[in-house]
Amino acid sequence: MPASLRSPHVPTPPELLYLLHGDPEELAEALASMRAADVAEALRDLPDDAAAKVMGALPFRMAVEVFDEPELEGHRCPIITRMGDAAAATLIEAMSSDQRADLFRELDERDRPRFLAPLAPATRESLELLLRFAPETAGGIMTTEFVSIPASWRVHQALEHIRAVARSKETVYAVYLLEPETNRLVQTVGLTDLLLAEGDAAVTSVRTRRKPLTVAADTSREDVARLISKYNLLAVPVVDEGGHVLGIVTVDDVIDAIVREQTEDVQRFGGLEALDEPYSEISFARMIRKRAGWLCALFLGEMLTATAMGHFEGEIAKAVVLSLFIPLIISSGGNSGSQATSLIIRALALREITLKDWWRIGLRELPAGLALGCILGVIGVIRIVVWQRFGWYDYGVHWPLVAATVGGALVGVVTFGSLAGSMLPFLLKRLGFDPASASAPFVATLVDVTGLIIYFSVAFAILRNTLLR
Amino acid sequence: MPASLRSPHVPTPPELLYLLHGDPEELAEALASMRAADVAEALRDLPDDAAAKVMGALPFRMAVEVFDEPELEGHRCPIITRMGDAAAATLIEAMSSDQRADLFRELDERDRPRFLAPLAPATRESLELLLRFAPETAGGIMTTEFVSIPASWRVHQALEHIRAVARSKETVYAVYLLEPETNRLVQTVGLTDLLLAEGDAAVTSVRTRRKPLTVAADTSREDVARLISKYNLLAVPVVDEGGHVLGIVTVDDVIDAIVREQTEDVQRFGGLEALDEPYSEISFARMIRKRAGWLCALFLGEMLTATAMGHFEGEIAKAVVLSLFIPLIISSGGNSGSQATSLIIRALALREITLKDWWRIGLRELPAGLALGCILGVIGVIRIVVWQRFGWYDYGVHWPLVAATVGGALVGVVTFGSLAGSMLPFLLKRLGFDPASASAPFVATLVDVTGLIIYFSVAFAILRNTLLR
Repeated sequence: MPASLRSPHVPTPPELLYLLHGDPEELAEALASMRAADVAEALRDLPDDAAAKVMGALPFRMAVEVFDEPELEGHRCPIITRMGDAAAATLIEAMSSDQRADLFRELDERDRPRFLAPLAPATRESLELLLRFAPETAGGIMTTEFVSIPASWRVHQALEHIRAVARSKETVYAVYLLEPETNRLVQTVGLTDLLLAEGDAAVTSVRTRRKPLTVAADTSREDVARLISKYNLLAVPVVDEGGHVLGIVTVDDVIDAIVREQTEDVQRFGGLEALDEPYSEISFARMIRKRAGWLCALFLGEMLTATAMGHFEGEIAKAVVLSLFIPLIISSGGNSGSQATSLIIRALALREITLKDWWRIGLRELPAGLALGCILGVIGVIRIVVWQRFGWYDYGVHWPLVAATVGGALVGVVTFGSLAGSMLPFLLKRLGFDPASASAPFVATLVDVTGLIIYFSVAFAILRNTLLR
Repeated sequence: MPASLRSPHVPTPPELLYLLHGDPEELAEALASMRAADVAEALRDLPDDAAAKVMGALPFRMAVEVFDEPELEGHRCPIITRMGDAAAATLIEAMSSDQRADLFRELDERDRPRFLAPLAPATRESLELLLRFAPETAGGIMTTEFVSIPASWRVHQALEHIRAVARSKETVYAVYLLEPETNRLVQTVGLTDLLLAEGDAAVTSVRTRRKPLTVAADTSREDVARLISKYNLLAVPVVDEGGHVLGIVTVDDVIDAIVREQTEDVQRFGGLEALDEPYSEISFARMIRKRAGWLCALFLGEMLTATAMGHFEGEIAKAVVLSLFIPLIISSGGNSGSQATSLIIRALALREITLKDWWRIGLRELPAGLALGCILGVIGVIRIVVWQRFGWYDYGVHWPLVAATVGGALVGVVTFGSLAGSMLPFLLKRLGFDPASASAPFVATLVDVTGLIIYFSVAFAILRNTLLR
């Protein structure tokens, strides 16, 4: 983050380390002027023992806020296990429920009972509920601290309740109205609506009544993000099959989810398994594993090029000049395929297009590929003509035919690349895989083999009476 | 969006078209039950004339909400130009300032005066302010409808003011306290803080006093997104050099900005210029232009492979067997480079690493590349040995040396690929370009030429006394 975007007066980790060994009051003062997110960021860069000490020196409310920061993920366990058991227990009890669940997900199996035992029964119950859901679902990122009131209340009752509980809730800007007998969600109202209404009006009357927007616990976090973003919500309730509110997902959790998804997408498109942890923190061995899998799979696929080339060994021996353009031609197919794939993956992710649009896309990518192929084909032919004419290289007596071969092959390869690149994400999705697995290297590998076959077929058609006789 | 995520009772565009020609009351009723975002989505799929008619049939407040939806971007001009001038003027007047500015950015130069003239002087002033900023900056996405009060007020005054103005503000959840004489921002307080405080307390006392987090008008929208996400804000104020609040950027604008950035990143990493409009809506000619630029640039770069291959024509003529592995070897370099690039681009974008970390990354990618290269090298050697031993292909009498060449070249090429792929984003950033321009095809092209040189150098070293004598 550029310096101007940082909040002011943030001591650097070395400064914190220095303060840690000096006057405790000075340390407390320095920390009090910081924002929770900045403290969390500083703690990440401190040795675990020092981080645990800083946590101990923080005012309690601040310590809770810091521990609630998603920035601290991956660092909470080493810190909490280095704190005193009593301090750790009160801290965990005070955390927000979603971050507490994240902490327990990270905790070592054998550490869990130790930290679970001192929790209040209600806390333990909410924790066990949250841990039941996968972390990439609405249930896995929701919090159980939301404001719900009986739908039979008046506005002034609602406002008094909100004032009483605000401190312990993640957000009070969305209030959930429940049917008094069944506790089913009937409506969502905003704090603004309540503030603007008359004190003795019914809470159900403050806003046009509509079936509330909800998600299920197993809705993917990407879909929750899409819903919150489309309807400009500050939070969305997660309901069970009976319509009872299990928790809410707030907009800040969703931003974290979107950023995480973005990282995964970029990494997968680059042709590796998503790292799931920062590049600068992942261990060497884990990183190699994440990269080697796809790299080997692609290598095995690419081996087909060696097989294909084996079939054309005779042609190459007769016309070595043909081999000169192999990298140029197959890479052009890979590049055009990579372009098409990135467009389709993204359009699918944004739901601009769906599976059933595949043939419309194909009908569009075919002329697009042809057009792009013609452009490259012309450049390729010009290149050969110029080099030959200026004497920079001698492509032999049949050089016009060689130029025609290269030009024709480029049209074919780029057209095939665009078409294959655009269809691959659909195919993957149809087969039940994530379309985003269609990485640039995946497409390139797919197109390379076919590119060779196209090239040598064009060469055979054009050169069979001359070079390839 | 999956059906379950849609709000209920949403008529499809054909149903709307049908309603449009039927009973106006029935249409109005159908529309009233919809959410603004859903109406906006339906309007996108309607013919422009029908969309303008639906806009006219909406209750005014709903029409304003629909027109404020970012989903309607790109469709506002055709709709507004088909509405009556009077209706258009009241609608534009009532829009939120940031969306109004977007509308004027989209409007044809010659249509602007017609829609600008009827605006109230204050509206025109705020519009002209917003239009001064580039759309990808904080100034370009901010809104001028925020709640600010003198820092000398009491809590009850603040709450009364908020109740009075809430309808016309984009958010009332963040309140900006200004120094009474200079109008400079001194503090930001939340609506919750005010609700929890005593009525006669000073507004400055409701929260720990800290220098407020702000951004400048020219801060990039990515940095605004990062700030809002890091500090879990609902809005961030945009201030001028004197510390006066020009406007605020709210969290929903930021989500839109993040999603847009994500699309750009995926497309650029795929090796094309960002489309800036949905794939399903962009015209064929514009799409070809966006793709042809990079495709041609990459093609010209890739031409160097033809030059390099020209230098090795003699070697290939002597040992045609070497040509069989060219696609396999250079593509492995491209793939490992693409992996490294995607990791580094993302780590740079998330500010996990900065420009000055380049050598640390290099020191990590070197052994990573070596490890991955050795894995692929071993697989490559095994493949040749197996094919030769089982008689599936005859690589000649010197096949053990050919296998050694392929294995050695793979180690070299993959190591170089990982190193080049990881250094390229740093280099681009150092030269003032966006590191995200280092697309997968870009890296592949860079690595292909070098890959050939590495391959033939290894071949010469190993085979100079046998095949290449």
